[in-house]
Amino acid sequence: MEALLQQSRTMCPFLKRTSPATLRTLSTATRPCTSPGGGTMSNLQVLGRRCPVMSKALAVQSARLSGAKRFTSRAAGVASVQPLRVPTGKRALHTTGGHPASLASGGYEKNDRGNPNLATLRSSPTAASASAGAAVRGPRPEAPTNERFNYDDFYNVELEKKHKDKSYRYFNNINRLAKEFPRAHTASVEERVTVWCSNDYLGMGRNLQVLDSMHKTLDTYGAGAGGTRNISGHNQHAIALEETLAKLHGKEAALVFSSCYVANDATLATLGSKMPDCVILSDSLNHASMIQGIRHSGAKKMVFKHNDMEDLEAKLASLPLGTPKIIAFESVYSMCGSIAPIEKICDLAEKYGAITFLDEVHAVGMYGPHGAGVAEHLDYDAYASQDTATPQSTKGTVQDRIDIITGTLGKAYGCVGGYIAGSAAMVDTIRSLAPGFIFTTSLPPATMAGADAAIQYQSQEPRDRILQQLHTRAVKAAFNDLDIPVIPNPSHIVPLLVGDAELAKLASDKLLEEHDIYVQAINYPTVPRGEERLRITPTPGHVKHLREHLVQAVQAVWNDLGLKRTSDWKRQGGFVGVGVEGAEAANLPIWEDAQLGLKAGETLETAVAREFNDAASQTTVLPLKAATPLTEKAYSAVNSAPVGVVA
Amino acid sequence: MEALLQQSRTMCPFLKRTSPATLRTLSTATRPCTSPGGGTMSNLQVLGRRCPVMSKALAVQSARLSGAKRFTSRAAGVASVQPLRVPTGKRALHTTGGHPASLASGGYEKNDRGNPNLATLRSSPTAASASAGAAVRGPRPEAPTNERFNYDDFYNVELEKKHKDKSYRYFNNINRLAKEFPRAHTASVEERVTVWCSNDYLGMGRNLQVLDSMHKTLDTYGAGAGGTRNISGHNQHAIALEETLAKLHGKEAALVFSSCYVANDATLATLGSKMPDCVILSDSLNHASMIQGIRHSGAKKMVFKHNDMEDLEAKLASLPLGTPKIIAFESVYSMCGSIAPIEKICDLAEKYGAITFLDEVHAVGMYGPHGAGVAEHLDYDAYASQDTATPQSTKGTVQDRIDIITGTLGKAYGCVGGYIAGSAAMVDTIRSLAPGFIFTTSLPPATMAGADAAIQYQSQEPRDRILQQLHTRAVKAAFNDLDIPVIPNPSHIVPLLVGDAELAKLASDKLLEEHDIYVQAINYPTVPRGEERLRITPTPGHVKHLREHLVQAVQAVWNDLGLKRTSDWKRQGGFVGVGVEGAEAANLPIWEDAQLGLKAGETLETAVAREFNDAASQTTVLPLKAATPLTEKAYSAVNSAPVGVVA
Repeated sequence: MEALLQQSRTMCPFLKRTSPATLRTLSTATRPCTSPGGGTMSNLQVLGRRCPVMSKALAVQSARLSGAKRFTSRAAGVASVQPLRVPTGKRALHTTGGHPASLASGGYEKNDRGNPNLATLRSSPTAASASAGAAVRGPRPEAPTNERFNYDDFYNVELEKKHKDKSYRYFNNINRLAKEFPRAHTASVEERVTVWCSNDYLGMGRNLQVLDSMHKTLDTYGAGAGGTRNISGHNQHAIALEETLAKLHGKEAALVFSSCYVANDATLATLGSKMPDCVILSDSLNHASMIQGIRHSGAKKMVFKHNDMEDLEAKLASLPLGTPKIIAFESVYSMCGSIAPIEKICDLAEKYGAITFLDEVHAVGMYGPHGAGVAEHLDYDAYASQDTATPQSTKGTVQDRIDIITGTLGKAYGCVGGYIAGSAAMVDTIRSLAPGFIFTTSLPPATMAGADAAIQYQSQEPRDRILQQLHTRAVKAAFNDLDIPVIPNPSHIVPLLVGDAELAKLASDKLLEEHDIYVQAINYPTVPRGEERLRITPTPGHVKHLREHLVQAVQAVWNDLGLKRTSDWKRQGGFVGVGVEGAEAANLPIWEDAQLGLKAGETLETAVAREFNDAASQTTVLPLKAATPLTEKAYSAVNSAPVGVVA
Repeated sequence: MEALLQQSRTMCPFLKRTSPATLRTLSTATRPCTSPGGGTMSNLQVLGRRCPVMSKALAVQSARLSGAKRFTSRAAGVASVQPLRVPTGKRALHTTGGHPASLASGGYEKNDRGNPNLATLRSSPTAASASAGAAVRGPRPEAPTNERFNYDDFYNVELEKKHKDKSYRYFNNINRLAKEFPRAHTASVEERVTVWCSNDYLGMGRNLQVLDSMHKTLDTYGAGAGGTRNISGHNQHAIALEETLAKLHGKEAALVFSSCYVANDATLATLGSKMPDCVILSDSLNHASMIQGIRHSGAKKMVFKHNDMEDLEAKLASLPLGTPKIIAFESVYSMCGSIAPIEKICDLAEKYGAITFLDEVHAVGMYGPHGAGVAEHLDYDAYASQDTATPQSTKGTVQDRIDIITGTLGKAYGCVGGYIAGSAAMVDTIRSLAPGFIFTTSLPPATMAGADAAIQYQSQEPRDRILQQLHTRAVKAAFNDLDIPVIPNPSHIVPLLVGDAELAKLASDKLLEEHDIYVQAINYPTVPRGEERLRITPTPGHVKHLREHLVQAVQAVWNDLGLKRTSDWKRQGGFVGVGVEGAEAANLPIWEDAQLGLKAGETLETAVAREFNDAASQTTVLPLKAATPLTEKAYSAVNSAPVGVVA
């Protein structure tokens, strides 16, 4: 496919001078089509009709598909323009929308698979034999019971829906470089972009201790676990990691899963289905993994308004005291950055006989003196004192009161996998009953060893998350100064409100194409329609000149596309917190100035510089840090390649 | 916990001289109990009452729990004997039944968490406040609506059920050593056992090309992907791996998931829920992941008898032709080794307008000239010819006719992860709609690079799977000669029928404790009750002396425990193929003699020796092989440490 594109680009003057962003816009913008199949056609197809090469191909396709009864024409049209949609300019980024990359790979078979229309038409033996039958028998009878279900049509209709509502996703080929964090190369290994939307929030994926632990474990114990936890896949790495996790959260036990998606799904599905008449109370902004788990449990579900304690209490009060109830919620909601009132939820749980299920996926590693999450952060001093000679009791702290904590090893801890932590009996129950845990291969030993190293590192070294917070504050402040609409929140997430799916995508594309900055657009269904946004996640590696470059680039894109400013939203009465009076004050950072070591009157940049300097000076005394020199210079050095603006 | 056990062992003469197997038997065998809570108590508890130390602890516990209304006494009793259940002899293997290991870890908190009873009692604030309330108010009112749900009781009751029906699982701490494959160390790094039940069927987890690829990728791209495929987690490794997978199966596209459990679950759930009135026809022995996927789809499910084409056809014929239907089945059923009549299922699918969903999890890497699985193997010559100058067409082959193939990267390919392969439209539909794909962090770049290397290696080098098959044949033949009951099957699985949960577990424990051989017992719910077995999986690394040792050890265990022989089963009329006339002949190996290069009259050992010698002599011409010297000597050298029998 790459070769085909290169070839097309060489031959076609149109492709050569048209930017990928324009191509994409042309291919998604549609107009009514007069082709036999009806439906609409993209502007790219309209242009294609003027091309001496493509017009013939389109005519052949049109003729071939005119016999198909429904959908096929438009759907196949989508498939046929797929190659054009892949940018062929200086960087081929969007290579996996609709997996066109594998369309031409063709396997060991030497056949006509290179033509997606042919492939689509004959990929289902059912469809093929049906149409063959039709050719023999003439026009098909109308009776639906005699007609086979057309699976290809079904797929194409489903995809067409995604295209039509602009929720079809094009994946960007981004290769994050460990030694140049937070930069990445694109499909071309020479090209660099700065990644501003990764969930490797702390850069632990390139932490030398993590990598060292993984290398050693790989060499000694091999690539994979080789079995389920029950059948040869249980080992010292699983034991050690689960002990570390239990200790991190101050719980009796922990259990590791393939991912936190699986952990949430399996745990809620198991508890909800096994507890008699269980009711699960779910925050309206809960992650898909919890929504699926609740659905899979078959338990009664009550959705309470996001972070709305009155609504939650009303729903709890409506249920008998003896009914088992699970309140499922998150600490940091990743797409808006809001933080749950965890303590109040614990109070309500206690009052109404419920248990609490807290997803700390976007918080572990990021909050609290040991990185255990927001629940730990809420009792910062009590937990911070655990490392001192006179530790305070943590009994009754918010974290202690939470029944089930779930977290990920794949975001701030830089690896992959998920877990639950809680009482030994609860964990043992899930271990014993959840199919999603029982019947799957364990995480590789090296992954578990790497994650363990990351947790241990972060539990002893808060500097990464402090720097992350300082950088977050600096970025939010800079955007606010420029009237660029940051959705106010107390966490490390910087969501910029766009409010339109196409514009959000266009803004993301422009940042990438014109400014070498990668920020994915977040559209429906990840956020509600109308709330489309760019979601920016600063890291400790986003040093001053990268932040300045980001702010300039976003400002340019906002100007170019005429996107709404905070003041525009304010004139409309405000939206999702943007332009809402008092929203800023209500969303003070959960990391307080004192916790960040910010001195009175100190600027953020001074604090950042001090943190980096302290880190550099302490390299010799802190063995943990020695492995990962955390200096501004070190970050800047790898990022010193010119971050140019492509004309 | 380890420390506590060591300490107990030093002090307690009973623990010192009692084997872990005996301890386990004592703790699971029960007798009626006269304690206030009623129920039964284990023989270990009975013995404990005679102990001057434990008797006091038990008395305290008994008094404390006598007020609890239901279950608590027995359940807490289970928890309290947990430490005793963990073997404390020369090897502490069973360290994670009920996660006792993490019970004592206690987090940053310095408190009484070391006592599991106390921990259980106070871990739920709900339960604690409820009992506090009871103390103030006197006897609780009987009205159930005024009583809070007791979550701890719920967990303990669920666990107790598992103990009672002997399905409670104790995990063995097995650390497979890459450089000593197929051996592992136990909780002690000095102790060696030979692993005979891993799904790393070909030892690819220690293949130098795989490891090399992973090391390099780790250094360049870091530990984790840092995001979902849509948000910064898509990269060249995902693109390359999916292209390799599509090519492997001769399909247009492929899609990688966290695991094949997730792949099966997400794909069936999505298709079944989205296709109008979809019916999923499911083989009765299908894996839990497919069963869950079907359940989650909400689609109508029809279970057909295992590999029974008459039953499948009757069910298909009962449905309207126009109804969308998915036939979901496996190629190799992992617990019995049976193989599906794939071609006949394709015929039926075509006849009745269904699509086929084939799980090749236990077959990829293992069958076919390129390791694509059983479907490829069925047209061995056509696919083998693809590497020659005059390739045959593969159109219409069994693999070509399958609509959806799913597979794993975590068994024969030695890594972790799963995938689907099929038409571009089908794959794009799942990519666009399945929450289990969309909302989870991508596999790490190094994992994808390692898996890609493994697939490429196996697609070019069939020797590992040929040796695996020769070793399988040799082991099966040796057991059959000794009247040890192998469940007949045409695949690489060697299931030994035991037919009793406790005996199967005991046989597994004796092999481990007395013979340094690890074969996990397979009990309910993984197999039906009464069909409990030992499941043995030979690898290319199980060279002659290891195979001889296995056969001797199994013979000794069969003698010691008086387990039923094939002739015993035969006298009872046969069971699951064992002792059934003609079962052997009906289960000829799917790898034919000619495909294995077996010459007429050649013994298996001669063929094995020839394969190893050929491999050694070709090391210089085959660059792929050079990286992983596959010689009997190499395998034997690392396995030359004495494989002693512990008295």
